[in-house]
Amino acid sequence: MASKSQVSLSVVRRLPRYYRFLSELKRAGRDRISSRELAKIMGLTASQIRQDLNCFGGFGQQGYGYNVTLLREQIENILGLDDKISTIIIGVGNLGRAVAAHMDFEKRGFVLTGLFDNDVDIIGKFVSGVVIQSMDSLEKFCEENKPTTAILCIPKTVAKGVCDKLISLGIKCFWNFSHYDLSVDNPDLIVENVHLSDSLMTLGYRIKENNK
Amino acid sequence: MASKSQVSLSVVRRLPRYYRFLSELKRAGRDRISSRELAKIMGLTASQIRQDLNCFGGFGQQGYGYNVTLLREQIENILGLDDKISTIIIGVGNLGRAVAAHMDFEKRGFVLTGLFDNDVDIIGKFVSGVVIQSMDSLEKFCEENKPTTAILCIPKTVAKGVCDKLISLGIKCFWNFSHYDLSVDNPDLIVENVHLSDSLMTLGYRIKENNK
Repeated sequence: MASKSQVSLSVVRRLPRYYRFLSELKRAGRDRISSRELAKIMGLTASQIRQDLNCFGGFGQQGYGYNVTLLREQIENILGLDDKISTIIIGVGNLGRAVAAHMDFEKRGFVLTGLFDNDVDIIGKFVSGVVIQSMDSLEKFCEENKPTTAILCIPKTVAKGVCDKLISLGIKCFWNFSHYDLSVDNPDLIVENVHLSDSLMTLGYRIKENNK
Repeated sequence: MASKSQVSLSVVRRLPRYYRFLSELKRAGRDRISSRELAKIMGLTASQIRQDLNCFGGFGQQGYGYNVTLLREQIENILGLDDKISTIIIGVGNLGRAVAAHMDFEKRGFVLTGLFDNDVDIIGKFVSGVVIQSMDSLEKFCEENKPTTAILCIPKTVAKGVCDKLISLGIKCFWNFSHYDLSVDNPDLIVENVHLSDSLMTLGYRIKENNK
C-alpha cells in the first residue's frame, strides 16, 4: 500500500466521484458491488477502479466485490469529510451567494465562518446563517478566528490585491473562482481552481463534433 | 494527423486550458513560446504539450516554438468559439443568475436566448439583457426558437421531470449543475456535468495531507 501522500493527484481527483456514486448506491439500498458494475456506472474500466482503490489499501474482496457502506466510509475518512476546516468567502455577489447557500460545507470537511464583501447594500445581511461583513473587518476577523481557507468569488481584476492581503493574514488554502492564477506568484499555497468556462467550451466542442 | 473526432476527451478537456494560457500570453504581448516554457507555466511536460497539439495537426516549428496568436486562433476554431449555439438556462436562483451574468457566452460559442424559472417574484426581470420567463412558456419558446442546449441550475429533486420535458422539446445538449445523472437514462445526450463539490473535497484532501 502506497502512503497517501504518494498517491497521484489524478487518483485523488477521482475519489470524490467514487464517494458520490457510492453514496447513491447506499441511498438505493445496495450492500455490495463488483468493480465491474461500479466501472460501468462510473464510465471507467474495472481494472482502473481496482488500481485506484489499491492505492489506498484496496477494500475489495475477490468474488464478493466491494462492501458499499464500508468503502464509502473509508473514502470519507481518506477525504477527511468530518474535518472542520475554517473557511471564509470573499465576494458575496451571485456566485459567492450560490456557493455559500448550496455547498453543504459541513459534509465536505469545511465550516463556513465568514463572508466578506465591499458592497454596503449587503453588509449585515445573512447567507446560510453567516453575516456578511465589510472587507475592512477582514484583518480583525482573521486574527481572532484564524481561518485557513478562503473561497475567492471576486473578479480577476481585484484578485491579486485581495490574495496578497489574505496570504499576509495567514490564509494558505484557496478555492479559486477568480481566474487569477494564484499559484504562479505563490507556489507554496494549496489552490484548487474552478474554471467553469473550460467546462462550457468542452461542451461546445462536443456539440460541434456531433453536428459534423 | 488524427481526425478531430478521434481525439480523446481527455485531450479535448485540456484545450480550453491551452486557450486560456495562450490568451494570457497574447494579452501580455508575447509573440511566440516554446513547448518547454508553455509546459512550465501550465504545469505539464513539454512532451505532453507536443503530443496534445499534434492530435490537431501540430502547430509548432522546431527551434522556433509556437506562434502565440496563431495557435490561439487555431484552438479557437477547433473549439468553435465563434459558434452561436442557442442556449437556455433553467433555474434562475443565485447559481443560474451567476452563470447568466458572468459566463461570457458569446466568447465561448454560445448565445443565451432564454431564462426560465417558476418563481413569480423574478419572472419578468432581466439578467444579462434576457428576460426571465415562466416555466409554462418553455414549450412555446422552444417551438419558436429551437434552442439546442440547456443549462440546468435546478435542484436534483426536480431535475428528472424537467429534463424529460426538455428532451421532448428537442434539447439534446446539457450543461448540468443539478447533480442528476442525466446520461444514465439518456445515453445519447451530450452532457457536461459540473460537480463543484468534487473540487471542494479535493481541496480538503490536499489540506489534510499537507497538515500531516
